[in-house]
Amino acid sequence: MSADHIRLDFEREARLGFGEAIYCAGKNVAQIATILAQAAERGARFLLTRLDETNFNALPRHLCAALDYDAVSRTAYFGSAKEAPEQARVAIVAAGTSDVPVAAEAARTLRFYGQSAANINDVGVAGIWRLMERAEEIKKFQVVIAVAGMDAALVSVLGGLVPGVVIAVPTSVGYGAARGGETALAASLASCAPGVVVVNIDNGYGAACAALRILRAGTH
Amino acid sequence: MSADHIRLDFEREARLGFGEAIYCAGKNVAQIATILAQAAERGARFLLTRLDETNFNALPRHLCAALDYDAVSRTAYFGSAKEAPEQARVAIVAAGTSDVPVAAEAARTLRFYGQSAANINDVGVAGIWRLMERAEEIKKFQVVIAVAGMDAALVSVLGGLVPGVVIAVPTSVGYGAARGGETALAASLASCAPGVVVVNIDNGYGAACAALRILRAGTH
Amino acid sequence: MSADHIRLDFEREARLGFGEAIYCAGKNVAQIATILAQAAERGARFLLTRLDETNFNALPRHLCAALDYDAVSRTAYFGSAKEAPEQARVAIVAAGTSDVPVAAEAARTLRFYGQSAANINDVGVAGIWRLMERAEEIKKFQVVIAVAGMDAALVSVLGGLVPGVVIAVPTSVGYGAARGGETALAASLASCAPGVVVVNIDNGYGAACAALRILRAGTH
Amino acid sequence: MSADHIRLDFEREARLGFGEAIYCAGKNVAQIATILAQAAERGARFLLTRLDETNFNALPRHLCAALDYDAVSRTAYFGSAKEAPEQARVAIVAAGTSDVPVAAEAARTLRFYGQSAANINDVGVAGIWRLMERAEEIKKFQVVIAVAGMDAALVSVLGGLVPGVVIAVPTSVGYGAARGGETALAASLASCAPGVVVVNIDNGYGAACAALRILRAGTH
Amino acid sequence: MSADHIRLDFEREARLGFGEAIYCAGKNVAQIATILAQAAERGARFLLTRLDETNFNALPRHLCAALDYDAVSRTAYFGSAKEAPEQARVAIVAAGTSDVPVAAEAARTLRFYGQSAANINDVGVAGIWRLMERAEEIKKFQVVIAVAGMDAALVSVLGGLVPGVVIAVPTSVGYGAARGGETALAASLASCAPGVVVVNIDNGYGAACAALRILRAGTH
Amino acid sequence: MSADHIRLDFEREARLGFGEAIYCAGKNVAQIATILAQAAERGARFLLTRLDETNFNALPRHLCAALDYDAVSRTAYFGSAKEAPEQARVAIVAAGTSDVPVAAEAARTLRFYGQSAANINDVGVAGIWRLMERAEEIKKFQVVIAVAGMDAALVSVLGGLVPGVVIAVPTSVGYGAARGGETALAASLASCAPGVVVVNIDNGYGAACAALRILRAGTH
Amino acid sequence: MSADHIRLDFEREARLGFGEAIYCAGKNVAQIATILAQAAERGARFLLTRLDETNFNALPRHLCAALDYDAVSRTAYFGSAKEAPEQARVAIVAAGTSDVPVAAEAARTLRFYGQSAANINDVGVAGIWRLMERAEEIKKFQVVIAVAGMDAALVSVLGGLVPGVVIAVPTSVGYGAARGGETALAASLASCAPGVVVVNIDNGYGAACAALRILRAGTH
Amino acid sequence: MSADHIRLDFEREARLGFGEAIYCAGKNVAQIATILAQAAERGARFLLTRLDETNFNALPRHLCAALDYDAVSRTAYFGSAKEAPEQARVAIVAAGTSDVPVAAEAARTLRFYGQSAANINDVGVAGIWRLMERAEEIKKFQVVIAVAGMDAALVSVLGGLVPGVVIAVPTSVGYGAARGGETALAASLASCAPGVVVVNIDNGYGAACAALRILRAGTH
Repeated sequence: MSADHIRLDFEREARLGFGEAIYCAGKNVAQIATILAQAAERGARFLLTRLDETNFNALPRHLCAALDYDAVSRTAYFGSAKEAPEQARVAIVAAGTSDVPVAAEAARTLRFYGQSAANINDVGVAGIWRLMERAEEIKKFQVVIAVAGMDAALVSVLGGLVPGVVIAVPTSVGYGAARGGETALAASLASCAPGVVVVNIDNGYGAACAALRILRAGTH
Repeated sequence: MSADHIRLDFEREARLGFGEAIYCAGKNVAQIATILAQAAERGARFLLTRLDETNFNALPRHLCAALDYDAVSRTAYFGSAKEAPEQARVAIVAAGTSDVPVAAEAARTLRFYGQSAANINDVGVAGIWRLMERAEEIKKFQVVIAVAGMDAALVSVLGGLVPGVVIAVPTSVGYGAARGGETALAASLASCAPGVVVVNIDNGYGAACAALRILRAGTH
Repeated sequence: MSADHIRLDFEREARLGFGEAIYCAGKNVAQIATILAQAAERGARFLLTRLDETNFNALPRHLCAALDYDAVSRTAYFGSAKEAPEQARVAIVAAGTSDVPVAAEAARTLRFYGQSAANINDVGVAGIWRLMERAEEIKKFQVVIAVAGMDAALVSVLGGLVPGVVIAVPTSVGYGAARGGETALAASLASCAPGVVVVNIDNGYGAACAALRILRAGTH
Repeated sequence: MSADHIRLDFEREARLGFGEAIYCAGKNVAQIATILAQAAERGARFLLTRLDETNFNALPRHLCAALDYDAVSRTAYFGSAKEAPEQARVAIVAAGTSDVPVAAEAARTLRFYGQSAANINDVGVAGIWRLMERAEEIKKFQVVIAVAGMDAALVSVLGGLVPGVVIAVPTSVGYGAARGGETALAASLASCAPGVVVVNIDNGYGAACAALRILRAGTH
Repeated sequence: MSADHIRLDFEREARLGFGEAIYCAGKNVAQIATILAQAAERGARFLLTRLDETNFNALPRHLCAALDYDAVSRTAYFGSAKEAPEQARVAIVAAGTSDVPVAAEAARTLRFYGQSAANINDVGVAGIWRLMERAEEIKKFQVVIAVAGMDAALVSVLGGLVPGVVIAVPTSVGYGAARGGETALAASLASCAPGVVVVNIDNGYGAACAALRILRAGTH
Repeated sequence: MSADHIRLDFEREARLGFGEAIYCAGKNVAQIATILAQAAERGARFLLTRLDETNFNALPRHLCAALDYDAVSRTAYFGSAKEAPEQARVAIVAAGTSDVPVAAEAARTLRFYGQSAANINDVGVAGIWRLMERAEEIKKFQVVIAVAGMDAALVSVLGGLVPGVVIAVPTSVGYGAARGGETALAASLASCAPGVVVVNIDNGYGAACAALRILRAGTH
Repeated sequence: MSADHIRLDFEREARLGFGEAIYCAGKNVAQIATILAQAAERGARFLLTRLDETNFNALPRHLCAALDYDAVSRTAYFGSAKEAPEQARVAIVAAGTSDVPVAAEAARTLRFYGQSAANINDVGVAGIWRLMERAEEIKKFQVVIAVAGMDAALVSVLGGLVPGVVIAVPTSVGYGAARGGETALAASLASCAPGVVVVNIDNGYGAACAALRILRAGTH
Repeated sequence: MSADHIRLDFEREARLGFGEAIYCAGKNVAQIATILAQAAERGARFLLTRLDETNFNALPRHLCAALDYDAVSRTAYFGSAKEAPEQARVAIVAAGTSDVPVAAEAARTLRFYGQSAANINDVGVAGIWRLMERAEEIKKFQVVIAVAGMDAALVSVLGGLVPGVVIAVPTSVGYGAARGGETALAASLASCAPGVVVVNIDNGYGAACAALRILRAGTH
């Protein structure tokens, strides 16, 4: 696909409170370079998601230098992140080590749009005391993003513990009956805890956007 | 199942900000009566959901009288609803006539826990101008609950229009490829609009609980 | 189907340590009566499962009288249960009220074959402290049967807490994304807790048979 | 598979109004070369679809030279395209950048068989005003091919706006709940707009063939 | 659901060329009566689909009398059908006897909106000569609606024979691997015949609307 | 996996009338070499299936030389094929070019075990006259193996034409709604033609074994 | 659906060796009566399948009397069965009691078209010795129809034991993971025994038709 | 993902009787090295699972040397295995050659935690006598791990033969209708043998953990 087909939505920030992000999966290096050139021309800031290390490294030197890239989350900032309040209003809770990249995508998205988040990892329910030790801490956040694959049992436990908004991000971690994240997704939707909300599999970016909407909702 | 097996969670309100609701589907009249007796003893208020008109009418006279029942939403209030602010902070937008019962479950749940909601019906995207006419009105709400079956296209259109939180409630309306709500569910999760969150099929109650969490998140 | 087609397996007890059970779903009253007559002739004891109250009541008087029937579990004993040790070696833990019939099927099966079980209900993880309060008690059992529908998160929490054998029985409780028990089944199989084993949806009988095999395995 | 197994349908054009196309996915360079040799012998014109750039480049020099190849759509013309009327009767509307290759397959197919098409890109419903701005323009076409992945909400919006024939081409764009195009496919079939028709996932070629049938239907 | 929730789309005819139809499945007698009263007030004509004989008979006398009802197709006309040209431009071809109700829904819809159709039944491909005998006749129509369940093989055979537009309507006829019409749907979409288009399972109404769009496309 | 784990079933021929075949998919070159060594020691003949050209070429020289290898069908004979009657009793009918490798696997299997087959290719139903021209020829065979992917419509047409046994082999040819052969499989099972039998997707070997059983059944 | 739509295929017997059967599921009493009247006029014999006892009893007296009805298999003969050889060439092997109705449909179909079958019931593999005791007897048949639900393990065991043709009929017996017969179907198709063939779920009629084709194949 | 995110659960052994295992799939060489360094510091022993030969060979020399690696099972021991009783109490029974890696994962896990197992291979039910010959031997074990793909018929046969605990491990062996192990999984869950328990597809590790729980259950 040639890069002329790409038309960015420069007005999203005004409309929704956060700008368009460039989803890089399935785009080649030339296309990404063209997008960044368009953005540079207009002085626009952009978040890039799902940018593989290989693609990042293949970008022209000056573009690599212009990007603040993070390999774990596969995100890059073109332009600087907004200033964020010191006090995090969002907790990102990941069940296991393999869920960290998705949690990191959420954290980096929040940070770019001006919110900081507290990261709490390795609190999967197979060792429930690890989670219980941190329950009081987690309860204080207005929004809790729960990142979990396989059975996603963490989602329900948090949903029953926490009075804030719980956003479940099912991940594609696991094999066999985990079905590429479908089981975590269905379990999150069928959760016995009331008022848990869910985004797509591995969609850390979407969970962060939802958190941004929620935090804004409380302020007007 | 005998009614002694039922143990209510009287502390949920303190913990999460809204009390336990009694999901009546699959419970018989005797069980519902026992629950209400337990609640009456403790002076507890309760929301009942999925209470069929047949089951409602089969309850003992004095219990029928004690309940504020609504046949469309299949909900009943045992005890009076909390006072609600005049100004609705939540809009409940339903795509078609058949989505109304689910929308009504959300509205009744919000009302019981002290929030009023604005209802906007029959704005399915097959006649997009109906929705566009009301776009400015809908944009003002902090939370928008989008209730839609079949293709759930309403969810994505709202997600791109509205800066507030958009909670999708896919419904089981439709036949064939609608697959009992699975298509609306998947389409909502795969929405091209960023930061839309989703609850289970036909789960108007869950969407309302999420809205309660969100409105509370903004206040502490 | 005429009853002459039915051939019972009177030697199962010798072979496996527990006799054949009669699965009554899809059998009519005449067939069940014929089976009981065959059994009576040989002086055999039998467990009947999935026997609806309607079918039970439609049986000839003398057969009703000969059966020890339990409506919650839909089981009946033809012949008396084996003597059971006072001390239960199996705990049956049910997440919610709607899971009780399946839990009861497991309990009645164990009791018929000479094992008593402790029943622990309404400890779903949406209120995790209810489960944590009873953790020490549950840890003492050699076998824990975990009965849960929807997200089946209880299974993983127990699997990480308990050193004994955890047998998950996913139930068909729930709607929408619960998919008639498929989500609970997949979540149990994909559990992050090591060494949890799983039986079919709603299969309280099978879980009890597995427990019988396990308890026997420890004794020879 | 050796190339002798291949038997082309040289009479399709007489029968259906458009000739057989060579679907190159899963065929190797030798097979494609043999097919082109057969065609050349008979002086036949052919459309090739799903021809990867790698395979195209691996063809013998003289064949590369004989083909009018387009990398975006992965199509090639062997022989020249029919003359097309200046005035396009078909609009090809693509929701997002990633849908462009499928849209291009449709456009190139139409062009080969003598129809020109207007391309309208990046009008996904997450920014509904982009579509509304061009509504009057789109309404004028006799056939509108709507190319969209993920939730395919564009299909329903167009189906309700446009009096012409709307052919939905669901695409495999997206991840997780997009399920490789299955969600876009089901949403298109379950569309709330009446009289929308659907072809297989990513089947730009099929949509173009349908358009050719439709345009011909109007002329006899 | 109370009837006040229902808002009809009286402008659809102007916009799309055919008016809104009332899908009666899941609506009760009171709701249907209210809709007809609204329509009567405005002097509007309406098509009713999926109207069961039981519901039809339960309508008030004067409404029954006002409707032109057909039990096979479960459709009713409120107001008279448009005049139709004598010469049918659409053929409706049904594979087997059980597909006739869906075919009849298509025929009645076309007739209401001013098109007549030729019905060709019992030409399933298991007796291919029955179809071949009528091939020349079928080829003459501009639009062929192919109604078939189970394997839907009729769709592909027609798609290869007929130069006109072939609209497949998969039906829910069959059992087991027919999966309620899903197999016929998938087979129609995966058809080896080029340019076949597909509507939802059992959607005779939708196929007719598509045909109306197509016939109109040819005229402007 | 080391090769000592492999235990061949040298008695299958005596029991079933055809020997064990070595399914090479997922076996490495060392394992295949070990198997052939075992077979050589016992003077056994063996059929190898799913043997990729790459693996074949990587075998030790003397083994390559000892094998009669066919790249289209990915089969090899170790030891010579049984003598076959000149007159073929089985027809192998393939819908399209891409189905040929599966058809060839069936043909080579039959040949190894002493049956010859007639191959009839490119008779997919999208050009039904191609099939009809050969109908009389095909009707004469006792067994017809129908190899088809996508919609597998060929299966039903043959099932209604041919009095002999029709064995459907659905293939994984196609994309999108073809679902890797699942649609062809379901369509074959739901065929409207009576008495068609089906084997697994791409299982040309299994269809040939079934044909061997059938031909033998007629002789004792 | 009115009965005039029904067109019987009176020539099937000449073509395939067995006449058309009337599949009564979804047909009402009036339609069945009309069919029988058509058949009577032409002096045709017919098999009726899936005829519920309720529908049978609702037929006019004289038609009930004219039919040889069997409630277990839900089949009826209109006209007398062909004469059958005393010696059965087909064995019908059913895994459990609940599979008997499907087995009976196969037996009655064979009998009507002139073949007798041996019935072997209750040989499910959970008690493998029951099957092993009868292995020698079963091996003698040219065709073995294996009727089994749930895991359908019987199919593979027979496929490895028996040199004749093994036709698997998966049944819808079971619950939960049995998925209405889908598991038995998939397991039969994925069987480790070579050359097993499969028909649709619960399709006893289809298995019998396949057996008729096979027995005929041996004779010409 | 950087290695600092990894937090090991060093207390699992005390809690459950067996330590945490490192699931290496999806971890890179650097991460595995970091984990081993952490473990070495604390003097901890660890089991590594799903460690590809490529990854193993890429580890630093001294770590390779410190590991007891097995390529078939893809497991490694860091630290020495516990002493095991000579007498095996667990039998691991594999249906076919391709199931051996999963069986080996179970065996190696048991061995690391102090249990020896007897391995019985190539006893798939397509040659049932191979299994019957060893039935008496298998019956003596307290726990039988049944490893089988495709139709998993071995599970049911063992479940009916063996009085001990039967743990089914469905494998992803097979193609087409085997659906990557889903069919073996469903067939094991729907098994007609009572009291069989099931773990996730290819989960040899999980089956071994379950066996450890069971053997321990018998001793306290």
